[in-house]
Amino acid sequence: MTLLITPGMGIGPEVTARALVENPPTERVVLIGEAGPMEAAADQAGLALQPIQDLEQVGGMSGGVVGLYAPQESEEPVPVAAVRIAAKACLSGIADALVTGPIHKQRLADEGFSHRGHTGLLGEICGVSDPVMAFVGGSLRVALVTTHLPLSEVPGAIRSDRVCHVVRTSAKAVRDDLGRSAPRIGVCGLNPHAGEGGLLGTAEQTEIGPACVALRADGWDIRGPISAETAFMDAHAGRLDLVVAMYHDQGLVPLKVLDFGRSVNWTLGLPIIRTSVDHGTAFDLCGTGKANPASMVAAIGLAQRIVRRRSL
Amino acid sequence: MTLLITPGMGIGPEVTARALVENPPTERVVLIGEAGPMEAAADQAGLALQPIQDLEQVGGMSGGVVGLYAPQESEEPVPVAAVRIAAKACLSGIADALVTGPIHKQRLADEGFSHRGHTGLLGEICGVSDPVMAFVGGSLRVALVTTHLPLSEVPGAIRSDRVCHVVRTSAKAVRDDLGRSAPRIGVCGLNPHAGEGGLLGTAEQTEIGPACVALRADGWDIRGPISAETAFMDAHAGRLDLVVAMYHDQGLVPLKVLDFGRSVNWTLGLPIIRTSVDHGTAFDLCGTGKANPASMVAAIGLAQRIVRRRSL
Repeated sequence: MTLLITPGMGIGPEVTARALVENPPTERVVLIGEAGPMEAAADQAGLALQPIQDLEQVGGMSGGVVGLYAPQESEEPVPVAAVRIAAKACLSGIADALVTGPIHKQRLADEGFSHRGHTGLLGEICGVSDPVMAFVGGSLRVALVTTHLPLSEVPGAIRSDRVCHVVRTSAKAVRDDLGRSAPRIGVCGLNPHAGEGGLLGTAEQTEIGPACVALRADGWDIRGPISAETAFMDAHAGRLDLVVAMYHDQGLVPLKVLDFGRSVNWTLGLPIIRTSVDHGTAFDLCGTGKANPASMVAAIGLAQRIVRRRSL
Repeated sequence: MTLLITPGMGIGPEVTARALVENPPTERVVLIGEAGPMEAAADQAGLALQPIQDLEQVGGMSGGVVGLYAPQESEEPVPVAAVRIAAKACLSGIADALVTGPIHKQRLADEGFSHRGHTGLLGEICGVSDPVMAFVGGSLRVALVTTHLPLSEVPGAIRSDRVCHVVRTSAKAVRDDLGRSAPRIGVCGLNPHAGEGGLLGTAEQTEIGPACVALRADGWDIRGPISAETAFMDAHAGRLDLVVAMYHDQGLVPLKVLDFGRSVNWTLGLPIIRTSVDHGTAFDLCGTGKANPASMVAAIGLAQRIVRRRSL
C-alpha cells in the first residue's frame, strides 16, 4: 500500500510528522509539499524523511519508509499543486489513498485559488461535479448536503435530488467501506424541529420528505426528515449509523463537541480514497508544540482501513 | 416561595407529577391546567393534589402542598389560558416563578393560537417585545439570537442591535442569577467558520462583529464572532460561561447531545422568572412510563434557585 499525504499549511507539517512518529506506518508513505517546513517539522518530531525525485518510482520504496516529494515550480501555490499531484497519482494507480492536511482558503484565495476548499478542488481534478463531504468521529458518521456556503445560500441549495445523492453516496460508503451492512440513516430537516409540520418552514415537505420517500423505496433504512437534535442524540446513543445534515454547522457542531479532536473529513463520490484532518491551519499554534495530531492520526488510520478493506 | 407549574400537553402532566414525587418540594406549588389529565397523572405517580378554587388565596397554603387550579372556561385553549393565568399571577406578586411543561404549537395553531411558542406568548402577556430564549444544561449555558424561524428567515434577522440585546440580557442573567461574576461569553458567527474572513458570508463583518465591539466597550468579556464549533468546544471544556448562538439548531443541537435530557429552557428579559422543560409533548410516549422527567426536575430546580438567589 502506498499512502500520499499533503501536509498542507500552518500546523499541517508538524501534526503530520508527529502522527507518523506516534504511529509508525508499515506502508509506503510519501509526503508531498514544500520541503522547508516539512523538513523542519520532521527534524523536530524525530521523523526520518527520504527525498523522492520521481513519484513514478514510489512503488520501489520499502514499506515503512516516509518519503518527501517537493513539487516543482508551478503557477499554483505549492499547497494546491501538491494536492493536484497527489490526486493524479491516486487516479493513475501510483498510490492507493490521499490524506490531506489543512490549507488556509483565504490566503490561497489571495493567490488566485478559486475553490471553497479541498473538496471542490478534488472534484475538479477527478472530474466529479458533486463530491460529498462526510465525517467520521467518535460515535458519529455525518454527511453534509451543503458544505461551505454562506447560511443565506443554504435554503435554496436543499434540493431533493441533491439530498438523494448525498444519502445514497454516504450510505454506500458506510456500508461498503465501514462495514455497516444495513446502515440506519437519519436525515435531518433544514428548519428548527424539522419544520414542525410546516409551521417553521417547508423544505421538509417539498424537498427532504420526497427524497426520503424515494430513498426508502430503494430499500434504504431512513428516518427523516427528523429534527437535528433527535438525529444526533440517536446517533450518539448508537441508534443511527449515519446522520445526513443539511448544512455545515448543523452537522459539524455536534460532531466537534463529541469527537474530542479525533474527527476525520472523508470525501465521498470520488474515484480515489481521500481523508483529511478536520481542523484548520491554526497558524497561531505553529511551533508551540500545542497542535494536536489526533485528527491526522485518525485520518491516516481511516485511509489505511479503507484501502485494506477494498483489497480483501 | 410559591411556584406555579403549567403542566401543558402530552407527557407534560406525567413528567410534572413524577418530578414532584422524585423531588418533593418544600415550597408551595400550584399546578394550573386541565384537571382530568393532571389528576390521572398524579394518581399514577402517587402525588397528592389539593384542589384550589381561588389563586389569590394560595399564599395561605402550607409549604410542600401541591395544589391544582383548573382554569374556567375561556376562549383560549386551556393550555394557553393556563400560561396566561400563571404569568399574570407572577406579575401581580401572587407567585414567585413559573415553570412550564410542553405545548403542541401545531395543535394549538389549529385552535387559533398565533404565537410560535411560549416565549412569544409570555412576551405579549408581560408587555415585552423582545424576550430572550436561553438554555441551561449540563456544562452549557446558551442564548439564542433567533428562535423558531424558518432557516431562510434567519440571515435577515441577525441585526447588530438584536445581538447586543441578547448578549447583554443573557450575560446579566448568567452573572446575577447563576453567580458567574465575570462571565466569559462566546458569540457565534452566523456562517460556517464565522464567515472565514468574508469568504463564506458577511454578517460577521456587518452585524455580529460591530455588536461584539460595542459589547466589549461596555466591559463584557466577549470572544467573537467565533465559529460555533469553537464556541461549543470551549464552553464544554469550561473555558466559556455563556454561548450566544445565532439560531435554533446552531445552539440547541450541541446542547442536546451534551445535556443528557436535563436541559432547561429559561426565558430572559421578562419581569417574571420563567423556566421550562426543553422537550416537546411526545404524545406517542403518553402513558407508557417512558417519558423522562429529568428536564422538568431541572426546570423546577432552576426556578427555585433563582427565586432564592434573588431573595437573598
